[in-house]
Amino acid sequence: MLIGGLDIGGTKMAAIVAGPQGPLARAMQPTVKTGTSRALPEQAIALLDEACRKAGVERTMLKRVGVSSAGPFVTIGGEVALVNPNLCGGLEATSDLPNDWVSIPLEHVLRQEFGDIVVRNDCIAALIAERSFGAVRDVKDCVYVTWSTGIGFGLCVDGHVLNGKHGNAGHAGHMLLSENSQALCGCGNRGDVEALISGRNIERLRGRAAADIFSAARRGDADSLKIATEAAQWFGKALYNLTATLDTSVFVIGGSVWQHHGEWMMPTVVKEIASRMPALTADVILLNAALGGLVADIGGLCLVMPEEWKDPWRRSSPWANLA
Amino acid sequence: MLIGGLDIGGTKMAAIVAGPQGPLARAMQPTVKTGTSRALPEQAIALLDEACRKAGVERTMLKRVGVSSAGPFVTIGGEVALVNPNLCGGLEATSDLPNDWVSIPLEHVLRQEFGDIVVRNDCIAALIAERSFGAVRDVKDCVYVTWSTGIGFGLCVDGHVLNGKHGNAGHAGHMLLSENSQALCGCGNRGDVEALISGRNIERLRGRAAADIFSAARRGDADSLKIATEAAQWFGKALYNLTATLDTSVFVIGGSVWQHHGEWMMPTVVKEIASRMPALTADVILLNAALGGLVADIGGLCLVMPEEWKDPWRRSSPWANLA
Repeated sequence: MLIGGLDIGGTKMAAIVAGPQGPLARAMQPTVKTGTSRALPEQAIALLDEACRKAGVERTMLKRVGVSSAGPFVTIGGEVALVNPNLCGGLEATSDLPNDWVSIPLEHVLRQEFGDIVVRNDCIAALIAERSFGAVRDVKDCVYVTWSTGIGFGLCVDGHVLNGKHGNAGHAGHMLLSENSQALCGCGNRGDVEALISGRNIERLRGRAAADIFSAARRGDADSLKIATEAAQWFGKALYNLTATLDTSVFVIGGSVWQHHGEWMMPTVVKEIASRMPALTADVILLNAALGGLVADIGGLCLVMPEEWKDPWRRSSPWANLA
Repeated sequence: MLIGGLDIGGTKMAAIVAGPQGPLARAMQPTVKTGTSRALPEQAIALLDEACRKAGVERTMLKRVGVSSAGPFVTIGGEVALVNPNLCGGLEATSDLPNDWVSIPLEHVLRQEFGDIVVRNDCIAALIAERSFGAVRDVKDCVYVTWSTGIGFGLCVDGHVLNGKHGNAGHAGHMLLSENSQALCGCGNRGDVEALISGRNIERLRGRAAADIFSAARRGDADSLKIATEAAQWFGKALYNLTATLDTSVFVIGGSVWQHHGEWMMPTVVKEIASRMPALTADVILLNAALGGLVADIGGLCLVMPEEWKDPWRRSSPWANLA
């Protein structure tokens, strides 16, 4: 038996095919943004075909497909559709996207090709991947965080991974934190976590790439240091808010901003958490995500992986060949 | 078989005794704050004795006891202890409490008398009560909120009631919301939800009882109207943040402030939620809690109630005799 995994993001899409011994092949493309609203799921099917060709297997051998996708989701006719403002040009009058999609019938189109599919938000899938094969194996109370172009979370409490009514649990990047900031988020909020510190919004607000600002901060440039320190403080406040809400044990943190600058920011972030409510924060630890750029692909696979594959994969880390 | 329920708050404590047909008797006292750190759980045992006497039964007939208690909790030797700043005088140098307790060995002392006990945060127990017998029966994604002396939450996602690593999930009253406000919370935070709008902190900040301010606001007093409207807006922002975090369906709201002024504040609160991220907020509804002042007592009972008692209780609402 073989399984497929999809990672659907605002910029790129990846497909991965795996068997009991590990992943066999992977294919990647920029996410399509033109054509009908079926174009994206049709691209996903074609990309799974390509991964199958690379692996030298037939697509009919894929018994299950797990889909890790950027949200938010809505449920239409009992099936998950995407209403992501970076993909759907019809959601906002001011959108500069080359389409007028108001939603993408992701699950509906995929189900016509694959009987057994599971669709989850990409940060929820990433959390499941890190709990299966990464930094928080079998940890009961943990939160995955990505600090990248956007800010997203996957939540696990008492050993239950949280989905929510439409699979949108973990959109705490859209939690309001600042009443002063005029920073505008893609969702329309001002002063939410993503507006304040996502890579995309730091660049929009400051007119310089976030990576440049963080690098300059580490070289000691005073203006950049101020911006980067404030960003780390806001990030720490967001993690504190989730600690108070969920009584979590571990934050496992990934995404391009954290990967490159997390070590430098760590003390500032820890201080924001630990300086508040010791009964809630005393035991909280922060870890770096272990699966890197493959976390969402592996997350997709985890959604449909037979339980008995897990131990062998844990022993051999077979995804390392793909990275 | 009989069961016992305890509701342990910062101001008062209640004990309730119930059988298959419903509650038999209830006893209540101001919570003790002097003596050794065992004084509070010993008072709880004595209060259960009193409830048993009122019901004309022996305490040895109580097979299980469910405890709904103000938090936060810490775990000491695998057992829940309380570290609540309104009960433990030893937590803060500036405390005006007549004791020097740094924690209260609640579960440890109760276990010496009762083999089968379950201890949960009072808002978690209240959520379980409202899901069992109140306004959100069997709702999978719902949040209980109390707006009273303090602000507390009980969270349920995908049908799982969230506890967290030490049973402190739902302390989102200590979520930071305002960077400008100098309002100080009992926990030491400035600008968290409880600092901004709890009954206790509104009074501390404004020098007038919150009930007076809300009543004056409803009569049209301009200053009071401004304070009350801002409070309703902060409350709405807190519920929005939880919606983004948990993708919830229903907020069920209780507590003295909401009971008296919720209907008047409802439109303002709804607007704060509904004006943001339609994919997350479109289906969210707000309901009034149904169990009133008995919610935590019934919550205590729910923690240890045999499943087969539930349907008869739902049909007959036998707690109505006690209210």
